[in-house]
Amino acid sequence: MEESAASQGEKKVVAVVGGGLVGALNACFFAKRGFQVEVFETREDIRKAKVVRGRSINLALSHRGRQALKHVGMEQKIVSKGIPMHARMIHSLSGKQSPIPYGRKGQYILSVDRANLNKELLTEADTYPNTKLNFDHKLQNWSAETGLMTFGRPDGSQTEVQADLIVGCDGAFSAVRKQFLRHSRFNYSQTYIPHGYMELTIPAQNGEFAMKPNYLHIWPRNTFMMIALPNLDKTFTCTLFMPFEEFEKITTGDEVIEFFQKYFPDAIPLIGADALKRDYFRLPAQAMVSVKCSPYHIGDKCVLMGDAAHAVVPFYGQGMNAGFEDCIVFDEIMNQFNEDFSAVLPEYTRVRVPDDHAIADLAMYNYVEMRAHVNSKWFIFRKRVDNLLHFLMPKTIIPLYTMVTFTRTRYHVAVERWHWQDRVINRGLLLGAVGVVFGGSYLLIKNPPNINKLVVPAEKIWNKLAALITP
Amino acid sequence: MEESAASQGEKKVVAVVGGGLVGALNACFFAKRGFQVEVFETREDIRKAKVVRGRSINLALSHRGRQALKHVGMEQKIVSKGIPMHARMIHSLSGKQSPIPYGRKGQYILSVDRANLNKELLTEADTYPNTKLNFDHKLQNWSAETGLMTFGRPDGSQTEVQADLIVGCDGAFSAVRKQFLRHSRFNYSQTYIPHGYMELTIPAQNGEFAMKPNYLHIWPRNTFMMIALPNLDKTFTCTLFMPFEEFEKITTGDEVIEFFQKYFPDAIPLIGADALKRDYFRLPAQAMVSVKCSPYHIGDKCVLMGDAAHAVVPFYGQGMNAGFEDCIVFDEIMNQFNEDFSAVLPEYTRVRVPDDHAIADLAMYNYVEMRAHVNSKWFIFRKRVDNLLHFLMPKTIIPLYTMVTFTRTRYHVAVERWHWQDRVINRGLLLGAVGVVFGGSYLLIKNPPNINKLVVPAEKIWNKLAALITP
Repeated sequence: MEESAASQGEKKVVAVVGGGLVGALNACFFAKRGFQVEVFETREDIRKAKVVRGRSINLALSHRGRQALKHVGMEQKIVSKGIPMHARMIHSLSGKQSPIPYGRKGQYILSVDRANLNKELLTEADTYPNTKLNFDHKLQNWSAETGLMTFGRPDGSQTEVQADLIVGCDGAFSAVRKQFLRHSRFNYSQTYIPHGYMELTIPAQNGEFAMKPNYLHIWPRNTFMMIALPNLDKTFTCTLFMPFEEFEKITTGDEVIEFFQKYFPDAIPLIGADALKRDYFRLPAQAMVSVKCSPYHIGDKCVLMGDAAHAVVPFYGQGMNAGFEDCIVFDEIMNQFNEDFSAVLPEYTRVRVPDDHAIADLAMYNYVEMRAHVNSKWFIFRKRVDNLLHFLMPKTIIPLYTMVTFTRTRYHVAVERWHWQDRVINRGLLLGAVGVVFGGSYLLIKNPPNINKLVVPAEKIWNKLAALITP
Repeated sequence: MEESAASQGEKKVVAVVGGGLVGALNACFFAKRGFQVEVFETREDIRKAKVVRGRSINLALSHRGRQALKHVGMEQKIVSKGIPMHARMIHSLSGKQSPIPYGRKGQYILSVDRANLNKELLTEADTYPNTKLNFDHKLQNWSAETGLMTFGRPDGSQTEVQADLIVGCDGAFSAVRKQFLRHSRFNYSQTYIPHGYMELTIPAQNGEFAMKPNYLHIWPRNTFMMIALPNLDKTFTCTLFMPFEEFEKITTGDEVIEFFQKYFPDAIPLIGADALKRDYFRLPAQAMVSVKCSPYHIGDKCVLMGDAAHAVVPFYGQGMNAGFEDCIVFDEIMNQFNEDFSAVLPEYTRVRVPDDHAIADLAMYNYVEMRAHVNSKWFIFRKRVDNLLHFLMPKTIIPLYTMVTFTRTRYHVAVERWHWQDRVINRGLLLGAVGVVFGGSYLLIKNPPNINKLVVPAEKIWNKLAALITP
């Protein structure tokens, strides 16, 4: 292997803007390469903060995220504090629970605590002697030409810092990205979905989990839904997703209970009626935004990663995983181009944009699938067919969820493959159905029954066929 | 009719930010209603400026734009200085010219001079005693809560102005819109297409037009194209649309001529080889952006109109027409809600967003159609079928282009209707083709020919059928 450019001469300065999940992990990646790393975070050090606000409490960690953690030696530490979830657990209106596995036996995603993960990553970044963490530094301005940044401090003063590379990991409302909007031919979109979310808690019951812990619990109700992820302290964090206008319709505690009695009756005793009446009004429902942009870099001095480059809606559980994978992809390209930023940055844009756009679209697709399709018989039937085919031909037919969650298949390749598989499987099912109809017809002609008894079944068969063609 | 709110009490102040086409026209609309209108334009007064730079020279004015001009008594004045274009004139590689009419006999679009139109509109706005035009006023900041705006002046000083309504008509890179991005749940996208454009001139020959004047000349060449619109001074303005990377490949005068010889040989003598070699390098190719956003208003004090709300790519000739129609739509809603901004603004967003998004999508669709489909036999065949059906059933089948260009059918309704018509016509054509095949088969069975002679025609028929199903 060639010696890295950084180790040949003076160590270059990499400024990571944002000390959240992707920023802290990225600091480890750059530190491992020997760069002089400076992390700048607007907020105080969350390891010392009393109250951490505003973001979801737990997250689903899967293969891509784990691979990135592994790269900096953090995988086992984080996994040991996560709770495996092997399947979705669907709660019907009647309270019936039915599991739909995520993949094959032994495949699972992990419920991890966001705040703890962030703390662990910051502590890990701190162990590198060539890394410095700067909290209470709010980016005010920066230049893509010179790499000079100006930060505002809580006392009103300003600090100037110059870097060889600015890595914008400052989230969905990125301050680094604002500068990109002023550059010509920067493609950008931000889309708010009509749904908001609200977090509620299911406390432990007699020191134990109130529901089966190793599942991601889902209450799909078509236009809205609730999910629940387990926490280490034996509580569950519930997230209610609903159109803002529905949230606004509920204005009293009694209306909350009425609403839950209608749609989530089994959740009332779990959350507790009094807690529900109180917690529903604790915080207003939060907005969810999907951000896409391109390119991810300006010149050879600035690059966007994580939510700053591609905020996604949370319905595929891939936001953090995609951000963590960004770090691996960038690292791989750094190897390929011997840390020459002028070559690495354009290549990173070329390689990563189609994948991030694919996962953003998939998350938006799952926004409908999770709350609506999960209820449909066709959906469950197709999941079973896919899983069976995957079992029979593990290299030919791989369910989309498996490719996204349990492999590092490039997101856009997974989507292309999914469309191909879908066509092949639907055609196979159609052919099978046609075979059954023809076979049946043959038998019927051999032994003709009363014609009047035939009309209804024929219509049913036709409906099934029609459903197969247009699922 | 009810008396307007403005005439009941003190005249409200409407600040129109931007003195371009839509801003100047809008000033007339608000002035006609009796508001105290202030127009703020960053640039100097173009009526006094020596060189007007940066935007296309001529534009296609059609029904929607004319209706808006009519509303303020400007239609005849502008139409008299426009040049009617009755059809597209397609230039093939061999130099053959074939017209494709825009609509029925007597229907045409008008080539108008942008700078002259802008000057006439500013002069018209100036005739209202309740209107004041402020040039050299660059918007620096404004508040959606108070309606207070700060403008920078060329001497470095600042002016503050307070308004009851701020109307952002400041174009694709709107300064007013920037503030919207800071508000929660504002959906926004800006998409640059890979093509750039460059303007060239075909001079008059012996004091006459060098080509037939009453056409929009098109040289479609699949991945790129050139168009030419006539001017009053008997010149044509050509616009070459091409991917930026193709523009960049051409670096010398000889390469320009080589390129034109390959793709636009008939244009070289028209433009003149020497002028072509020189003018190609006069200005770099310009970018084209498509901007969509929603909502168009904040509270009851600010609204976006024209390119500021919906910049579209120029391939449907509807950018200005859609912007002018904005003024009529807003005016209609002002009547409906008796000038109550708190009701008018949300209604304007509700009504206008789907239409503007539809025309933005159509313009993007035509970006492909104009340079590629126009060459295909199927496209020309379908245009003929559509026009014939429109002639036979003028109220049932209306070509999309006609609805968009020669009516005020809401853009999104035109698109829905187009999809419906397309399905109906394609099915009709398919049925017709199937009938021909069956009829032919019947005749063949009656009089069986040599089977070997049948294979090739059968394949051809099959290919035609396949093309009908998937045009």
